[in-house]
Amino acid sequence: MDINIIENFIRKQKVAFICSVDEEGFPNVKAMLKPRNIDGMQRFYFSTNTSSMRVKQYRNNPNACIYFYHKGLIKNVGVMLKGKIEVFTNQEAKDMIWLKGDTVFYKGGVTNPDYCVLRFRAESGRYYCDLKTESFSIDQ
Amino acid sequence: MDINIIENFIRKQKVAFICSVDEEGFPNVKAMLKPRNIDGMQRFYFSTNTSSMRVKQYRNNPNACIYFYHKGLIKNVGVMLKGKIEVFTNQEAKDMIWLKGDTVFYKGGVTNPDYCVLRFRAESGRYYCDLKTESFSIDQ
Repeated sequence: MDINIIENFIRKQKVAFICSVDEEGFPNVKAMLKPRNIDGMQRFYFSTNTSSMRVKQYRNNPNACIYFYHKGLIKNVGVMLKGKIEVFTNQEAKDMIWLKGDTVFYKGGVTNPDYCVLRFRAESGRYYCDLKTESFSIDQ
Repeated sequence: MDINIIENFIRKQKVAFICSVDEEGFPNVKAMLKPRNIDGMQRFYFSTNTSSMRVKQYRNNPNACIYFYHKGLIKNVGVMLKGKIEVFTNQEAKDMIWLKGDTVFYKGGVTNPDYCVLRFRAESGRYYCDLKTESFSIDQ
């Protein structure tokens, strides 16, 4: 599988599904806005609330996966990336992915303590197209 | 939150995202066709391949969640249900959710050993609508 085709697919999606393992050992999943920033296929940056359940879960257990899915007329495509998520609350990270319109979500702007950054580092992936699946590795 | 509204929402979705925890402790997620059968809000039945990665994972660790998501023009809605998944390979279970068209996926029909049933039992849920979230319990 050509990794560039997978990256192009991911960059076109508007929604990312991000998964964690909670305190009781259950998988959790949530739809989020697409990553703010993608650095190659290694690092994916998301904005979120510092007070959110997800942040608590990743601080406790960084194991994660992110998933992109498109249900097409002809074929359905899904890409799952496995890796770890780190939570960043430092101003440099927060500045990096901030967009003007974010004040709608985070009152007071980029210094709002309830705004933070999730950085996902991909380690491996799996590509699904209709009934076929293929695993792939991510260059580190 | 009215559980009937949540159930109606779930019944309208064409895709379910099902999550597991793999052998290395990482969450995994995959889009699947909507449940074949929903028994109240307690039991959800899916068809899948007995040889699939997911079946292996659920046999090893039944902890699961299923997720339904709709990205609307006005609002985005997500429902996550947490619970356990059991794998059924007995003919009675396989007959129960079989549909005629399934021979496209499972050659030889309903007795194909590579066709099996996943039964998800919901224990609790979480409802997301735009920026608001609410937990709810499921009557057992």
